[in-house]
Amino acid sequence: MTPPPAAAADLVITGCTVLVHDDQERIGFQENAAIVVRGGVIESVTSADAVRGRAAVERVDAAGQVALPGLVNCHTHAPMVALRGAAEDLPTEEWFNDVVWPIESNLTEKDVALGARLACAEMIRGGVTCFADHYFSMDAVAAVVDECGMRAHLGEAFFSSQGPRGRERSLEFALRHRGGAGGRITTVLAPHAPYTVDDADLTATAELAHAHGLPVHLHASENRDQAEASLARHGVTPIEVLRRTGILDTDVLIAHGTGILDRDLPVLRDATGRVAVATAPRGYLKFAWPTTTPVRALRDLGIPVGLATDGAASNNSLDVWESMALTALVQKSTTGDPRRLTSRQALHHATLQSARAVGLGDGLGSLAPGRRADIILVDLTGPHTQPVHDLAATLVHSARSSDVRTTIVDGRVLMRDRELLTIDVPAVVREMGERMPALLDRSHGKRIQDYDT
Amino acid sequence: MTPPPAAAADLVITGCTVLVHDDQERIGFQENAAIVVRGGVIESVTSADAVRGRAAVERVDAAGQVALPGLVNCHTHAPMVALRGAAEDLPTEEWFNDVVWPIESNLTEKDVALGARLACAEMIRGGVTCFADHYFSMDAVAAVVDECGMRAHLGEAFFSSQGPRGRERSLEFALRHRGGAGGRITTVLAPHAPYTVDDADLTATAELAHAHGLPVHLHASENRDQAEASLARHGVTPIEVLRRTGILDTDVLIAHGTGILDRDLPVLRDATGRVAVATAPRGYLKFAWPTTTPVRALRDLGIPVGLATDGAASNNSLDVWESMALTALVQKSTTGDPRRLTSRQALHHATLQSARAVGLGDGLGSLAPGRRADIILVDLTGPHTQPVHDLAATLVHSARSSDVRTTIVDGRVLMRDRELLTIDVPAVVREMGERMPALLDRSHGKRIQDYDT
Repeated sequence: MTPPPAAAADLVITGCTVLVHDDQERIGFQENAAIVVRGGVIESVTSADAVRGRAAVERVDAAGQVALPGLVNCHTHAPMVALRGAAEDLPTEEWFNDVVWPIESNLTEKDVALGARLACAEMIRGGVTCFADHYFSMDAVAAVVDECGMRAHLGEAFFSSQGPRGRERSLEFALRHRGGAGGRITTVLAPHAPYTVDDADLTATAELAHAHGLPVHLHASENRDQAEASLARHGVTPIEVLRRTGILDTDVLIAHGTGILDRDLPVLRDATGRVAVATAPRGYLKFAWPTTTPVRALRDLGIPVGLATDGAASNNSLDVWESMALTALVQKSTTGDPRRLTSRQALHHATLQSARAVGLGDGLGSLAPGRRADIILVDLTGPHTQPVHDLAATLVHSARSSDVRTTIVDGRVLMRDRELLTIDVPAVVREMGERMPALLDRSHGKRIQDYDT
Repeated sequence: MTPPPAAAADLVITGCTVLVHDDQERIGFQENAAIVVRGGVIESVTSADAVRGRAAVERVDAAGQVALPGLVNCHTHAPMVALRGAAEDLPTEEWFNDVVWPIESNLTEKDVALGARLACAEMIRGGVTCFADHYFSMDAVAAVVDECGMRAHLGEAFFSSQGPRGRERSLEFALRHRGGAGGRITTVLAPHAPYTVDDADLTATAELAHAHGLPVHLHASENRDQAEASLARHGVTPIEVLRRTGILDTDVLIAHGTGILDRDLPVLRDATGRVAVATAPRGYLKFAWPTTTPVRALRDLGIPVGLATDGAASNNSLDVWESMALTALVQKSTTGDPRRLTSRQALHHATLQSARAVGLGDGLGSLAPGRRADIILVDLTGPHTQPVHDLAATLVHSARSSDVRTTIVDGRVLMRDRELLTIDVPAVVREMGERMPALLDRSHGKRIQDYDT
């Protein structure tokens, strides 16, 4: 008896090698494979032979390519691409106080929309399918996410200097957009950091998080200076501030954490919320911070560490692929151990841990039946990725974001053969150029906040 | 009276921005410019208007692109691309003794030719126009350079364990190929390193260098362990070994030098030869070496520091663009000073200093009349390189090797719009695949040398 024909798939990808995780979360590669997508979800990861006759609305021949889960940028300020290269070769304090925060006092909703659009174009081209954004005028970012087809984890940032309205707006945003863009948008409460948001506001944020079932995304212990200043002024580290204000009892994503001290590790271990950390190592090198995120110590506690780029005003790109390679290199270098991170460990951070960091560990982070169809196809036929002796090493240390040929979110192709299908880059660049004189003007002497750790 | 018409140019590039150096070697950018090439040499860097009627065999419209001097890879082992990814996540000693040196005992001239061809393809695609290669069976590399159109600075490596024949072969190679490939090949004597070549051989090398007017290219003080081992065994640093053997009285290119100590600085300052250092920072991070090349201290002595990748078996790519960005980032990080290297300083290393490092400072390294026409065109219209507030920062920190659209050596286009014109990559990859089982075999238990600093 012939089995009944399977329903037509929305998308069938054939002929590729697929990065898969086994039941121990070890990374492997299934060769000559196929991925079947239906209703935005992966129906199966199977052999190319098995899908030969399968009816499908769209087929992608991916011979010579590797399919990976779409990358997740676990901490960025997407609209800041407008300031890419505007504040160079400066220490952190001057970067904030003399350039970035004065310029941000000029920001309009239009600037944020244009910046988000350019950022999404860059990320889609670099194989990023989901980003955790933490910025201002986030309604504009949500609208761009809706139109361009990406997935995002969004929060409206606030400082205590804005008074209670800042916190209220962050909550209103989170409630308004939760589940937006056909379910591709998840939302958070987004206090800026313990050095700009006081204990009362952090405590209130934790209470709102519980009341509304929302996670929290904030900067904390970004660098060693902040940790030391907090100890000197308050007798506690920024991580201990998160504990005493109840933030560690929420599902919280901490950006950077290069100032996490040994005394913070048991605090993080004992957190009752789901804690994750996002690491964006390029900026730490560029700012000459003395330490990097303690990835290995955090992993030993079972805390997922996701990959991130921060904003392009510090990182100069939104290239998560580069963050993956640099995380591997910098962890080897700072721990003095060339054996770790291995390339497979780096890929684990780039896949399951990054998905968990943005609270989407059940739906994203691996290519397996039932997971959302957020998939990228990476071309390894270039001379710089040949020969392949160790595919994990090829992906982490030889391939680059520009090797991503196809980017798919929820089964929808957003870039095909490097052509963006949902964003008109020249139009965005032209409009952004017109806004630049007004955006860059610092003659007013204002800034949105002071950096004083 | 009308002036007589200028002779037809071989190549005119129009509409681009050109990176130029002023008489203080400061980097600037000439907009809406044109470059006229005749006889393999830059005739002029002028305005787009000035070349409107100029007859030319070939014209390249480079609107939206930046013209830079071709990058120079100042230290590599090009054929080692065959081992890319074969020795991962290992300490230096195991990398050499357990994998690389056993595999290299299988090397044939055919392997070297295939590796060199793949390496040249990768480098041309990454905007590298010249490379300093230090390897075995270098006749095969010279032949590949001749056929693919690149420029190269080549040396046949030797160990003292090979007896006097090693040194003699290095000399014979240097004399045989000097001025080869239509003048695109320059040659060196290439002792491997002070820990594999004894003082007598180094002294003889220095004498041969003087007798034949040849420069020297070798590894020295690659890492801190080597410097300390040399002090413990011989009472002198590797740099002091170079002085006492006369190597510092030759024109010498030192690879890596991350183990250069403070006591070495006056030794290098007082060298009577032209000393240069090549830095390949990615590998230092990957091997978890405790230090990096002391770029700033060397620059303070007037010693040029060129950019390099080392071989792809350690660096995983031959991406000099990445070396440029990482040199800037790692120098900031290791000196604790976010202000240095600036992007302009990084570009100075990538241009004039790299040209000087390979002894070609008079002919390469800047786009100016009379210089060789080694030119790359870089596309900055991608979303990851927009907007441009600071073109030097865009080039160093946002652009990538994959943004190079066109690569030109001696006025000949080797890659146009990312299409390689002189190398058939699929054919090379196919042939290399056939050689792999024999090349990777380590069952024989041999190795070409022992790593024992």
